[in-house]
Amino acid sequence: MKKILIIGIGAGDPNYLTVQAIEALNAADVFFVMDKGPAKDKLVALRKEICARFIRDPNYRIVEAESPERRRDGVEYKAAVDELNRDKQRVFEGLIESELAEGQCGAFLVWGDPSLYDSTIRILDTILAEGRLAFEFEVIPGISSVQALAAKHRVPLNFIGQPVSITTGRRLAEHGFPDDANSAVVMLDAQNAYTQLAGEDLDIYWGAYVGTPDEILVAGRLDDVKDEIVRVRAQAREANGWIMDTYLLRKRGVKD
Amino acid sequence: MKKILIIGIGAGDPNYLTVQAIEALNAADVFFVMDKGPAKDKLVALRKEICARFIRDPNYRIVEAESPERRRDGVEYKAAVDELNRDKQRVFEGLIESELAEGQCGAFLVWGDPSLYDSTIRILDTILAEGRLAFEFEVIPGISSVQALAAKHRVPLNFIGQPVSITTGRRLAEHGFPDDANSAVVMLDAQNAYTQLAGEDLDIYWGAYVGTPDEILVAGRLDDVKDEIVRVRAQAREANGWIMDTYLLRKRGVKD
Repeated sequence: MKKILIIGIGAGDPNYLTVQAIEALNAADVFFVMDKGPAKDKLVALRKEICARFIRDPNYRIVEAESPERRRDGVEYKAAVDELNRDKQRVFEGLIESELAEGQCGAFLVWGDPSLYDSTIRILDTILAEGRLAFEFEVIPGISSVQALAAKHRVPLNFIGQPVSITTGRRLAEHGFPDDANSAVVMLDAQNAYTQLAGEDLDIYWGAYVGTPDEILVAGRLDDVKDEIVRVRAQAREANGWIMDTYLLRKRGVKD
Repeated sequence: MKKILIIGIGAGDPNYLTVQAIEALNAADVFFVMDKGPAKDKLVALRKEICARFIRDPNYRIVEAESPERRRDGVEYKAAVDELNRDKQRVFEGLIESELAEGQCGAFLVWGDPSLYDSTIRILDTILAEGRLAFEFEVIPGISSVQALAAKHRVPLNFIGQPVSITTGRRLAEHGFPDDANSAVVMLDAQNAYTQLAGEDLDIYWGAYVGTPDEILVAGRLDDVKDEIVRVRAQAREANGWIMDTYLLRKRGVKD
């Protein structure tokens, strides 16, 4: 039987790796590395650094595969992601079929945590459901950017006994602040959706490249700091060629 | 200056410790251990095991403090937690004042992740705000039971591009399934709140003692497995004297 490990490597800082993830790295024969876009070189380099630092026996292989990109030419978001995932599935199938011998163990290194806004679990499930390939797989949790953000700002995600919503910039822009929560974590925001909530009396805890040497943190009342975040974010994106940011919004005045 | 580290030690499995957490353990002079209730012996033992396994220089101190308990005699939940946190604050102040010398580093070892349903950050902030004691503190993220649960069930928390609500059993019982989400993670459920959602066409991914040798996992359509979970949960609680469980509820039929 072939075995696949989906290893959460945490949000940037190699020190976020868990003991379990390090053991998993050492159990793998082959690493499948698929990144894309302007951050690709940096992300691939970080994965290679993690392998070099934590793997004791250097006889491992890294296979870099061309990662499909999501269409951004006006096609509806969900349809574009579906198409992307079908393309990724074909790439994964090719890797599992041709780069992994029976009895061998292959690993995907996932940024942050594999259970949050990542498609690797979903794609492997689909491949298994289609029945053409057989393998077993295991998921190793990792420190997500949400947790790294909260730790760096030293802020709890929830008010006492209260819920937290984890959502996307796209949904925040379309639906506003989630109805059922007074804390919301926003991921995948390419459009500064927080600026649309000006006047709603929120605090924001924002971070970019959290856990990396390029980390930037800004926190304060949303109305007071939103322009600063827009400016800092644009500068950082310009300087680095890409940006990866996350933020927590909390209603002010909730008795905690 | 005194320094405090709030170290997330992950959800049960010592292998969930991160490299950063291990470095933090090795930087601390004193560990403050405060557990309570029927799980106390097991939780204290696990923290001691973690210290013994990961700390290289055995010249560290463990200070066990009596943990205040939340009143359960009918007082309103939020008021009881506020009172509990004031009691905890007094205990924390006593520890920081009398057990930590200037220049020393003390650590609180927090189950899971310090940013999720844990009061340590909040209490240290309050102590600092009151200005009677001075210290700096740092937060080290850890693998939460939410992530451990998702990894063990090999299930993503979110549908593609969709939000996830993290909530409590108490709120689920009072407000039903969160309006703005099709995935909900439920923590701190002492009352089998999921049974109240029978007929709502949900899948449940349930886990108790996740990451420990006593781990129990049950997954399936809620209507099909809810009675099994109630039974297994009661048996486990009876056998162990305590239970710590978490679950993910996902709407069925969401196109993913």
